[in-house]
Amino acid sequence: MKEFNWPIRVYYEDTDAGGVVFYANYLKFFERARTEMLRSYGFEQDRLIAEQNVIFVVRSVNIDYLKPARFNEQLNVSAKIIENKKTNFTFEQSITRQQDVLCNGTIRIACLDAQSMKPKLIPFEILEHLAQ
Amino acid sequence: MKEFNWPIRVYYEDTDAGGVVFYANYLKFFERARTEMLRSYGFEQDRLIAEQNVIFVVRSVNIDYLKPARFNEQLNVSAKIIENKKTNFTFEQSITRQQDVLCNGTIRIACLDAQSMKPKLIPFEILEHLAQ
Amino acid sequence: MKEFNWPIRVYYEDTDAGGVVFYANYLKFFERARTEMLRSYGFEQDRLIAEQNVIFVVRSVNIDYLKPARFNEQLNVSAKIIENKKTNFTFEQSITRQQDVLCNGTIRIACLDAQSMKPKLIPFEILEHLAQ
Amino acid sequence: MKEFNWPIRVYYEDTDAGGVVFYANYLKFFERARTEMLRSYGFEQDRLIAEQNVIFVVRSVNIDYLKPARFNEQLNVSAKIIENKKTNFTFEQSITRQQDVLCNGTIRIACLDAQSMKPKLIPFEILEHLAQ
Repeated sequence: MKEFNWPIRVYYEDTDAGGVVFYANYLKFFERARTEMLRSYGFEQDRLIAEQNVIFVVRSVNIDYLKPARFNEQLNVSAKIIENKKTNFTFEQSITRQQDVLCNGTIRIACLDAQSMKPKLIPFEILEHLAQ
Repeated sequence: MKEFNWPIRVYYEDTDAGGVVFYANYLKFFERARTEMLRSYGFEQDRLIAEQNVIFVVRSVNIDYLKPARFNEQLNVSAKIIENKKTNFTFEQSITRQQDVLCNGTIRIACLDAQSMKPKLIPFEILEHLAQ
Repeated sequence: MKEFNWPIRVYYEDTDAGGVVFYANYLKFFERARTEMLRSYGFEQDRLIAEQNVIFVVRSVNIDYLKPARFNEQLNVSAKIIENKKTNFTFEQSITRQQDVLCNGTIRIACLDAQSMKPKLIPFEILEHLAQ
Repeated sequence: MKEFNWPIRVYYEDTDAGGVVFYANYLKFFERARTEMLRSYGFEQDRLIAEQNVIFVVRSVNIDYLKPARFNEQLNVSAKIIENKKTNFTFEQSITRQQDVLCNGTIRIACLDAQSMKPKLIPFEILEHLAQ
């Protein structure tokens, strides 16, 4: 399947007193890339909630921190769907600085009914894109 | 009026690569103290929204950063109401480390209808406490 | 003086349970725009620290919150220097959504020696740009 | 081995527009509990860096999100060492709200030389506590 890439700049807000990006903040970077990947296919999550009652939530994350990212660095975040089922799908994501892989993650996302928060079928027009 | 005090421990999440607490995060500390002050009077903000349709939002902040706070330090955050009107009130807040004042802030809060987001009279039972 | 503009997308990470951008996070947006303004003039803050021992810190913020920003919105952050002295300078910043002004801020920045954290003259080549 | 428990209150800063705690912020909660566990044994991480040149960094996280936490809730974060080796150790952590388990995590931590950032033996006096 296709890999999506999104550039990230590291600001002070992302770093901690160890001089590196705080470990929780890589999850923000991962989510930005997933959001922008959906947007690149034409899906806006605020409209999905308002118009289709569909919300995506994270079910699990597995993250390996290999090398630290530092203040002011320019990074790339990748996102690729490695599995998609009826009500959930799984992303493989990486954060790289030029050729260096800093962080790898596997993130499983569930599709829920935005009211009841129960599992819901992923809308067909999204599934089509995720399966490519 | 009475001053309320709330202890804060600085964790990695609060700091930045400059080795100090990131400037936006003092606003988190200020809000924790305001929330705990209201709680100490018996007001839970989730119940205020659900039961009385009342939400508090920040209208303005004026903050002076005097000295930096660092990783692992134990701080105190104070909160004191210096003005209260029918639909808004103003806090004077400080962050201190022992005798050192690190940061002073004046924060104006508006009381809104949680549905319409229009100004709403502060509930009388809260006003009573704020005026003391 | 010249105004610098920087686009910001609102992600989940920026919002709170009130459905709007959390009040402290506008300070992150303001800082991103200041950083990118300096970068547009050719100044990288990690190199300024490493090569010239120069660090910029926030001395005060005055912020008015006029209207809330929401999840997934596209915003613009402006930054303009309204005063510059030998060791500090002041930004006027706004966050807008199309024609709507959501938030105005005045942020005063000091130039410090990155080792001693004492006030330091702003490097001449930066001052030149700030004064235009 | 012994389980350590640490209370957490959910503030606005922790939540997102979905009305729940933002998925990255559980990692902040986990870290607060690990830090407080070490503190309860008498180890202050700022002193470990300054006096023993020892810093702890996260190598991997595996997190399952089971149920959401909401604004203003009182949570408990547990931390328990399930494995300890010469230069790294592994925590099992949970976030609970009364009897409900909201989130489970396994977090592997490496002990590094704070200068070279190379693996370093965990100081003996810490290892003694971790092994209990």
